[in-house]
Parts: sequence; C-alpha cells; structure tokens
Amino acid sequence: MKLATLKNGTRDGQLVVVSKDLQSAVAVTHIAPTMQAALDNWDTVSMHLQATYHALNIGQLDDVMAFDASQCESPLPRAYQWADGSAYVNHVELVRKARGADMPDTFWTDPLMYQGGSDDFIGPEDDILMPSDDWGIDFEAEVAVVTGDVPMGVSALEAGNHVRLLMLVNDVSLRGLIPGELAKGFGFFQSKPASAFSPVAITPDELGDAWQGFKVALPLMSTLNGELFGKPDAGVDMTFDFGQLIAHAAKTRNLGAGAIIGSGTVSNKQGTDHGSAIKDGGVGYSCIAEVRMIETIRDGKPSTPFMKFGDKIRIEMLDAQGVSLFGAIDQQVKEYGK
Amino acid sequence: MKLATLKNGTRDGQLVVVSKDLQSAVAVTHIAPTMQAALDNWDTVSMHLQATYHALNIGQLDDVMAFDASQCESPLPRAYQWADGSAYVNHVELVRKARGADMPDTFWTDPLMYQGGSDDFIGPEDDILMPSDDWGIDFEAEVAVVTGDVPMGVSALEAGNHVRLLMLVNDVSLRGLIPGELAKGFGFFQSKPASAFSPVAITPDELGDAWQGFKVALPLMSTLNGELFGKPDAGVDMTFDFGQLIAHAAKTRNLGAGAIIGSGTVSNKQGTDHGSAIKDGGVGYSCIAEVRMIETIRDGKPSTPFMKFGDKIRIEMLDAQGVSLFGAIDQQVKEYGK
Repeated sequence: MKLATLKNGTRDGQLVVVSKDLQSAVAVTHIAPTMQAALDNWDTVSMHLQATYHALNIGQLDDVMAFDASQCESPLPRAYQWADGSAYVNHVELVRKARGADMPDTFWTDPLMYQGGSDDFIGPEDDILMPSDDWGIDFEAEVAVVTGDVPMGVSALEAGNHVRLLMLVNDVSLRGLIPGELAKGFGFFQSKPASAFSPVAITPDELGDAWQGFKVALPLMSTLNGELFGKPDAGVDMTFDFGQLIAHAAKTRNLGAGAIIGSGTVSNKQGTDHGSAIKDGGVGYSCIAEVRMIETIRDGKPSTPFMKFGDKIRIEMLDAQGVSLFGAIDQQVKEYGK
Repeated sequence: MKLATLKNGTRDGQLVVVSKDLQSAVAVTHIAPTMQAALDNWDTVSMHLQATYHALNIGQLDDVMAFDASQCESPLPRAYQWADGSAYVNHVELVRKARGADMPDTFWTDPLMYQGGSDDFIGPEDDILMPSDDWGIDFEAEVAVVTGDVPMGVSALEAGNHVRLLMLVNDVSLRGLIPGELAKGFGFFQSKPASAFSPVAITPDELGDAWQGFKVALPLMSTLNGELFGKPDAGVDMTFDFGQLIAHAAKTRNLGAGAIIGSGTVSNKQGTDHGSAIKDGGVGYSCIAEVRMIETIRDGKPSTPFMKFGDKIRIEMLDAQGVSLFGAIDQQVKEYGK
C-alpha cells in the first residue's frame, strides 16, 4: 500500500491513499485524518486503508484525484522521533577520512545513530532554504522506516517486524558546521537542518522480493542538477539492517508509533577500497562529501563543490520494472528570507 | 496559568487547567483536547484557557475535580522536539572532569545541546523502568521551556519571547553508557532513556519577579531517598539564558510549536571552584555525578552510589512563599519487565 500526506494548511496535512502507479489518490478522512493518526491505530486502521488501496488500483472508487507530488508534505510532516543510523560504514569511513578522523573497529559492530529534528520536516518538492550557502550544503540520500510501537529491549529479529512503512530521505547536511559541532562531543545539531522525505510512504509488501532481511535491495538514484550522481544499491554493504537499527534505538527506551529510523547515506564499495564516481564508471555516491573524499585521495584536493543557491537534487528509487516506488524527492537550494 | 495532562488511556491524554494552589483542575476539551492542540493554536486558545484559569481560582466553575499528580502524564506525553542544553557550565566542567575529558573555553560562549527522545516520555510519578541498574542510573534536575513556532535564525532576545510554558525535568542519564557512546562522536542516545516532566506546566507570568532575563531565579530542590540532595538556584550560574538556548536550536531550522528546550542540569559554583554538597553546608547538586566528582577531587574516589532498583528521586521548585510551582516529579527506579 502507498500513502501520502497532502498540504491542506494544517500542521499535519491530509492523509491520502495513493495508487500503485502514483497517478491517483483518494482522501481517507473517514478512516484516519492524518498519517500519525493512522500509525497510532495501525492494527485497526491499516486493513481499511488496504481495502481502499485495492479498490483505488482497480478503479472502483469515486472522488479520486490526480496525485501531485508537488502538493505533498513529507508523509509525516512532523514526527515524534527521527533517529538516523549510519548503516553503510563505507560512508562513515569516507567522511571521517575527509575530516581526518580515525574510524574505530567497533563501528562495524555497534551502529552509529543520531537524533535529528523532527518538528518541522519540509516537503519532497519544497525548497531547501538556508541563510548561507557557505556552510557546505550537501544532500544525503537514504532509506528510512516508520515503526509501530516498539518495546524497550526488543531483539533485532523481532524489531524488523515493527516496520510499518518505508520512505526515502534527503538528510540535508551542513558539512562546514560538522567538524566544530562534533568536536564539542554532543553530536549533530545545527549541522542537520530540516530533512525532506519522499512523497509516498509504502508498506514493505510493496517491495516484493526487494525487501530482503530488513534491507531494501534496489538502487537509490541521486541526480544533481540533472546529472546522475549515484545509484548505489541500498541492499549492498548495509552493515546493519533495519531490525538492528531499531533494536539499537530501543535498547534503553520504548519507541512510539511513528518513530522514523534512517539507514544513513547509502554507499557501496563496489569491490574497491571506497567505490567510485559515476563519471569513473562506478555506481557513484549518495552525497557530495564522498566524491570529494575520493577526489582528495586521487588528486590531493576535492574538485566537486558543495551545493550553492540554485542547485537541484532529485532522489528516487525504481523497482525492477523501472517504476518509481516512492515518487521523487526533488528540491532546490534557495536563500532563506529572499 | 497552570496546565496539566491527565492519563485517559490515549497517547496524548486530557488537557486540564489546574488551579494556582494545585488543589483542583477542570477539563477543557471544548477549548483544546490536548496540550499539543493548545500549543498548535496558542494565539486563539490561550486567552480562553486563561479565562478558565481565573474562574477556577475564584471558585466560579462547576465540574471541578481534585488535582492528583499521580494521574498525570508529562504535560506533553510525547513531543515533536526535545533539545536539552547545558547552560550551567559548572555541571559540564564537573562531569567532564569525572570522565577525564578537557573542557574547551568555547563551552562558555557556544552552548552544548543534544536532542533527546521525545516519542515516549514518562509521567511525573511513573517508575523509571530499567533492564539493569548496573548502567549508572542518575537523575538530572532541570528547568525546560516549551516554545511556540520559532523562525530559523531568530535572535536570542527575540527567542525568549517565544517561550509559552515552563516545566521541570528529570533527564534520566545512564552514566555507565555515556563514555562509550560519546567516544563514537555522535552524542547521547542509549545513555538518555525516557525523561519525565513536572505534573504542571506554567506560563512565565506565574513566576512573577522570578522570571528574570529568560531565567528562573528560584532554587530547584532534588530529594534523593527522602534526603535533600540539592537546592541550587536556577537563576545563578546559568551561562546561557533560554533565549540564547532557543536561538542556538533555531540557527539552521525552524522550531515547531511545542518544542521543548531544556536548561541542562542546574548547578551553582557557590563562590568555590565547583560548589559543595548539602552535607558539607552547600546548596548541593542536581545529579549524583557531580557529587561523585567532588568526592573524587577530595577523597580520590567517589563514595555516593548511582541509583539502584528501589531508589526514589523527588524534584520540586517552590516560590518565594514556599508554594510548589510545578508540583513534584516523584519517581522510583524499578526493574523493567518485573
């Protein structure tokens, strides 16, 4: 099943069921007015949403509207939890090399995870508004899951069964602010502005065989200013699956329904030390920082700039038949307040 | 005005207006069903809540119930943002000394802040449930504010005017998990289990003259197993006021209505290097870690243990007339799942 949230002037928007081909949608106020309301009562609500989804797909419904991603909020316009892991350790190795930081061996066995701001997400086609483009604005293409209620101390195997929905994420990062902020020892805060999620959130069954061991075995495509920048496979080199990430987050506390857990930037090693860029024949990367590190290793200095006002980023995932699964995150960086 | 949230079997509870003397309360479903709903529409809702508060205080209302803090959720049972600063730098100096970490001078000018889990707060009299009491369970007594909508890039002076409500917090910390977690560089996660807030949230005007320059100039009392453990003044040695903390949080993103910003553990230097314990004639501390550090400096090793199953902590703030402002956080540590 595919769900989305349309902008309607309220903080939480309007929940809609979206057709499998992303062409049409139908409001489901009588079932659940908002995405959070659906997640709060998932056991009773989801079967009704599923019935609507089937009826929509076979053309049995009235009051159907054309689905327009530009009218979407992120599926959860605000959430009670946004915890982002770093499951693709290749990414961690590269960005740490880029800032001259060693990587402990435990990073291969104990997930990194930080808490992001979740009170004011931006929509999938909303502008990335920043007061300055001197802060090293970077995109990070990721996969994320939305959980149901997860009890404290859950096992990784059990945790995977608490996945309710999947989405794509652009976890915007301000590279210029990260070194100073991490040096303080409390993790990211100002270096992680508002994230955007894909127009559509989908249930795991929509992935079919691509949902493998709580991983999504499909390429994640990032297109920067109209040129393909990365297509790494989200099922490859994911050291920690979503079950492990959820269990990590729930070690000392419960997670409430609607908690979002991210994969971290998707990155493939491609049988080399750290992978390679699209222009070098590789699958490329899901953020600019990784390419800059590859350039630094090869040329002594980075040549790909971070994003400036006017730059565009598109993030999308297609199924094996080439059909978009989540719709596309499609954003432009603009100056805040102008 | 004083507001609280009663447990009613739903995730967000029932908003009530509480009388100034904390003796009675009245449901205000017709004005706003939940605390978040009130904050979402504060400009139109708050005047109606205020009118109810005045009528309640002078005995003009029917359907009044006795106020019972044991039936309270935290004022926001779940929130879209919980960002905790470290405004009392004395606390930061002490806990860093305790784990052998230096403190950079910039900590006096650039606030530390981390994001806590906000999807599953516990109530002010709920048990602190932990799978193990070998993790160095500690309380942290703090003050927190709830904001309205705060625009990105707000100035510290302007930010202070976005404070809607104030609460007390017990920011439970697992000291044994902190060094390993901070060494990973991403900040706290598993070392910060669910926090509890005071039964009552109050508007700044309730503080009268004690609301000074976006600080609360009153002692914060922590009582551990029936003995007074700390009574430092929250208005003293607060290096960053709430305006500065909110502005720090909003540097690169908007804050949504209902965002909670914490002061960090309240700590006074008392004209000495790091203050002193109650039993040594000082104002004491708002967490066990600080006393253990004082003991280590003086005796070479700590003698006050962290909390074990069965231990109790009570956190409360009285006004100049000795009347409780927020009600008390009153919790016991118990074994999870037993």
